[in-house]
Amino acid sequence: VSSTSFEILGRDGAGRLGRFKTKHGVVQTPTLLPVINPNLNFIPPSEMRKFGAEMLITNSYIIWKRHREQALAEGVHKLIGWDGPLMTDSGTFQMYMYGSVEVQPQEIVAFERDIGVDVGTILDIFSTPDRTHDQARTDLQETLVRARASAQIKGDMALACTVQGGIYPDLRAECAKAYQGMGADFYPIGGVVPIMEQQRYATLVDVIVAAKQNLDPSKPVHLFGAGHPLVFPLAALLGCDFFDSAAYAKYAKDGRMIFPDGTWRLEEITESWCACPVCSKHTPAELKKLPAQERELRLAEHNLWVTFAELKHVREAMRQGTLWELAERRCRAHPTLAEAFKRIVAHSEWIETQEPLSKGSAFFHLSPESSHRPEVRRYRERLLSRFDPKGRDFLLLPEVNKPYSMSYAPLLDRLARLPVVPAVQSAFGPVPLVLDEMYPLAQSDVPATLDKETREDLEAYLGTIETAKGVRVRADLTLEEAERLLTPLETPIDWDLERVRAVADYQFGEGAGDALLAGKVEIQKSRNTGKIRQVFVDGERVLALRAEDGFFVPQAAGAKRLHAAIPAPRLRVVVEQDSVAFNREGKNVFAKFVRSADPALRARDEVLVVDENDTLVAVGQLLLTPHEMGWFKTGMAVSVREGIKG
Amino acid sequence: VSSTSFEILGRDGAGRLGRFKTKHGVVQTPTLLPVINPNLNFIPPSEMRKFGAEMLITNSYIIWKRHREQALAEGVHKLIGWDGPLMTDSGTFQMYMYGSVEVQPQEIVAFERDIGVDVGTILDIFSTPDRTHDQARTDLQETLVRARASAQIKGDMALACTVQGGIYPDLRAECAKAYQGMGADFYPIGGVVPIMEQQRYATLVDVIVAAKQNLDPSKPVHLFGAGHPLVFPLAALLGCDFFDSAAYAKYAKDGRMIFPDGTWRLEEITESWCACPVCSKHTPAELKKLPAQERELRLAEHNLWVTFAELKHVREAMRQGTLWELAERRCRAHPTLAEAFKRIVAHSEWIETQEPLSKGSAFFHLSPESSHRPEVRRYRERLLSRFDPKGRDFLLLPEVNKPYSMSYAPLLDRLARLPVVPAVQSAFGPVPLVLDEMYPLAQSDVPATLDKETREDLEAYLGTIETAKGVRVRADLTLEEAERLLTPLETPIDWDLERVRAVADYQFGEGAGDALLAGKVEIQKSRNTGKIRQVFVDGERVLALRAEDGFFVPQAAGAKRLHAAIPAPRLRVVVEQDSVAFNREGKNVFAKFVRSADPALRARDEVLVVDENDTLVAVGQLLLTPHEMGWFKTGMAVSVREGIKG
Repeated sequence: VSSTSFEILGRDGAGRLGRFKTKHGVVQTPTLLPVINPNLNFIPPSEMRKFGAEMLITNSYIIWKRHREQALAEGVHKLIGWDGPLMTDSGTFQMYMYGSVEVQPQEIVAFERDIGVDVGTILDIFSTPDRTHDQARTDLQETLVRARASAQIKGDMALACTVQGGIYPDLRAECAKAYQGMGADFYPIGGVVPIMEQQRYATLVDVIVAAKQNLDPSKPVHLFGAGHPLVFPLAALLGCDFFDSAAYAKYAKDGRMIFPDGTWRLEEITESWCACPVCSKHTPAELKKLPAQERELRLAEHNLWVTFAELKHVREAMRQGTLWELAERRCRAHPTLAEAFKRIVAHSEWIETQEPLSKGSAFFHLSPESSHRPEVRRYRERLLSRFDPKGRDFLLLPEVNKPYSMSYAPLLDRLARLPVVPAVQSAFGPVPLVLDEMYPLAQSDVPATLDKETREDLEAYLGTIETAKGVRVRADLTLEEAERLLTPLETPIDWDLERVRAVADYQFGEGAGDALLAGKVEIQKSRNTGKIRQVFVDGERVLALRAEDGFFVPQAAGAKRLHAAIPAPRLRVVVEQDSVAFNREGKNVFAKFVRSADPALRARDEVLVVDENDTLVAVGQLLLTPHEMGWFKTGMAVSVREGIKG
Repeated sequence: VSSTSFEILGRDGAGRLGRFKTKHGVVQTPTLLPVINPNLNFIPPSEMRKFGAEMLITNSYIIWKRHREQALAEGVHKLIGWDGPLMTDSGTFQMYMYGSVEVQPQEIVAFERDIGVDVGTILDIFSTPDRTHDQARTDLQETLVRARASAQIKGDMALACTVQGGIYPDLRAECAKAYQGMGADFYPIGGVVPIMEQQRYATLVDVIVAAKQNLDPSKPVHLFGAGHPLVFPLAALLGCDFFDSAAYAKYAKDGRMIFPDGTWRLEEITESWCACPVCSKHTPAELKKLPAQERELRLAEHNLWVTFAELKHVREAMRQGTLWELAERRCRAHPTLAEAFKRIVAHSEWIETQEPLSKGSAFFHLSPESSHRPEVRRYRERLLSRFDPKGRDFLLLPEVNKPYSMSYAPLLDRLARLPVVPAVQSAFGPVPLVLDEMYPLAQSDVPATLDKETREDLEAYLGTIETAKGVRVRADLTLEEAERLLTPLETPIDWDLERVRAVADYQFGEGAGDALLAGKVEIQKSRNTGKIRQVFVDGERVLALRAEDGFFVPQAAGAKRLHAAIPAPRLRVVVEQDSVAFNREGKNVFAKFVRSADPALRARDEVLVVDENDTLVAVGQLLLTPHEMGWFKTGMAVSVREGIKG
């Protein structure tokens, strides 16, 4: 049992906007836990809320050594003067710094439990980057022994089991897997401070991804000791929910100021480019003249303002669906971060599984890395696997301003008579005109001049299409030439039908369009925009269009058609019998009732809710990833749009 | 005559950190002039200083229409309630917005003069981006007529002559050239508001560069109507000194908040990622609930805090020599800005002439654009034109960590016996080991993996070296193979001598090394770092090393050797006879005494100060560019290190 719970409210990349509940209050994530040193009188915990802190971390080992009796008697909250959510570290970092600690692994966990912390950490073994693979594995095995023993005695305290494994992704993965089912509630990724100190951010990316891919996704992940805003966007994009740091205080004592793009010494600054309450009141010259103690306080306050402002930036970017763009900008602060950003896109096959179907934001093409983003990867894969050119060659039309269909409107009649797939070359690859109102194509912003790497990628992708589809991509033919050379179609293409079919196949898989459109089709369009709004077949409404991203919402009739034509497990979320009656009434599907789900689904996909006999019970929007549904015991899995009576 | 003056205190790219003096006070540049509307009671001028404003702008046409008598009687400063430096616009923008104004061109300039503004603007013709080349030229000719007439009557008011020419760089250049010698004191670049509204930032870059290349460089340049922090770093990098804007107020009235990376509507924000006094006191939810008038004030204050923080960022980046890096980061905020950044590097031939020899900062390689920066261009050109391989092939050694010479120290003895130029491939091109302690090579941070465009650029550059130098660049040969295949040298290479010669040639031009080293050489090194510190020849100290950038400071004896061996005008700054006696005594060279200078010199170069008969009178460091020296009438041109008695 645990007294904490974690819920996902939004997502971007592999990142999560979350809510972490504890007995002492609720915490928005991603966030940072300022480190409170119980031996120092610095910024009092009670003042931390004004900067934006909602949870703190302190060190149970220091308390155990110096304030044991008092902490056991009055509880840790009273001891440090904070009534909100509280985490403790266990002495692992002290072992790393000083070589050993006096406390036993189970002793410290029992102590954390007994003094009333919300999240207590095991005494794991910190593998430094210089540990060999064998040494790191030995460390890891000891960590796992301790974790198992700690889980037995944790009581209702949430237990933080730290992922170790040094610089070796395979060991990080092994550790994360071993924790599955062990009863942990919180996963710090440990041993990363020296990796960050050595600016090995690409290694940091690998280590985080290896851990994330193998951890229980229903629990928060904490990047232990990461407290510089430089790493927040990239780590949050990879799914880190918590950070912690004593940097605000340590740097202040050392005369250093934190900024979103680095650290500067106060003495080297003439004008601070920060508008925080400290910097807007005091010039650097004034700060330099303050008595040492007051100056340290002011610098620590500045550091906290800047730190929490960047966390708000990360959370707000997730709400807006622009965390990739923020991470890309921030990763231009240093070549080692630029390298890390490249490493992130190298993991885009995994990130694509976490990335929602659409995000209500624009896609900015900003660099060679942009064309390796999961959104591009997904588009290119689905064009190959789900778009049927029916043996027609692609005809690449000259580029014009978006939206393509409007720009090409004057040509549509001529194009409808040609036996080709009219398409436009974009940074995503060729976009058939019938797919050009979908996310992220319609919402993308691409510069006129693409870099060489992107251009060569695109060229290679054209070859892949030709091989996969057995058709040619004609970039060598103008419309006039095509009209001269090709035999016109007897029946011109019906663009609306073609569009509905292509988008449905892209969204639901091959065959979906035919299933949905079998019968007498009537398409209703918006009077203002001319865009498709609803699709009726044989008098029944089967589809409505999500205006913000150009995808379809299947209505009950549409869901029945999809269910009949597309075999299980595709498009399905299977719920337990206990849930069926509720869902048939239009009530949402809760995660704990989900049996299984089609792994090809993505968050924000429209799905078929079925019972264990594949009887259709509802249609709705998926809120989690298929993988997450196996893990979450609380919260919603599918927002049901319509229940379907038996 | 004018009552204002402008001085350059620092530089980065084509940008200038400046000081603008007026009768009403001194202004640090780059800065922004908040627009004060004399008809509105909003944020009072007296409060503007707290945000960082040092100069304001108001509209003389509105004052002329509504407050004429009062302004003439009491002066404009009293009228608006501001005792600091003040600029006025003339009604041009009103013409652009409303089609016409009632005032005559000379009438408004006389009015600006009579009400006591510090900088008054002519009534120029605003050419919108849709004007054809012919129309824009006609507009321009009328603007020039008005400028000439206005210059006659300006009195001691500083006259702002606006550069027009629409979207046509040739017309912008023509206009800027026509202003030379017309007696203007301040150069707004006008007509750019619609260009920015259309997000045509690449065009904005072209327009700024065309103007800057042809304007009197001793006067400030103002990007008229530019007030969004998004454009500050790129415009400042190109040499814009002033911005102005009513955006802080207009956006606030419209419920919009300015951030360094864009504009957001208050209503779409859940958490503000800003720590300014407004955002640290009020949540967005609280701001939304305020009465409209108070909310507008708070948003305007936020907008001003953010705007001036970014200007401080720009100025501080110039002090640190990191404005390129800041501009590159900021230009990742949107694809159109990324496009503009590419356009900036396309102008790097011109920017290189403005870029100082070294900047005391690191060079960050961050993108394909990085290898087109002026620093890279300069290195590649000088390696071609100033480095003499003496017929030896380059041997590209495998990459190791920097600094190269230390990493290769164990190999130096073996390398000294090979008839090759040992070099390392870097993002700059091949770096001979003897040049590896110089700026920006030793100060550069380059990622391990270069993008395709950069790799192909480097490959092409190797071919250029081979053609230009008639030697091969051997990337196909290991050190061991070279030892096996090549006949060892009879006299091994003296690395120290080779390094001094190569750096001297790179810095001063071919032949400099031989001239400086002719005789019995003694090289003094640092005991701590092992690096060269001083060079003595025939018992005289000829060179000292600038530790921060690895370049030489010639001592008097060194200057005499350079002077004797290198023909005029190379390395020379020629001063008038009136200056000679002072400079011989070690006093600095003032700009107004400079006759001419070697156009190949760069700011921060070590130069020979000579009289008109090419007699050497001093040696010192150049503070301006050779081009600027023809224009500046005040301020220092050369910081003299040693006077040389006749």
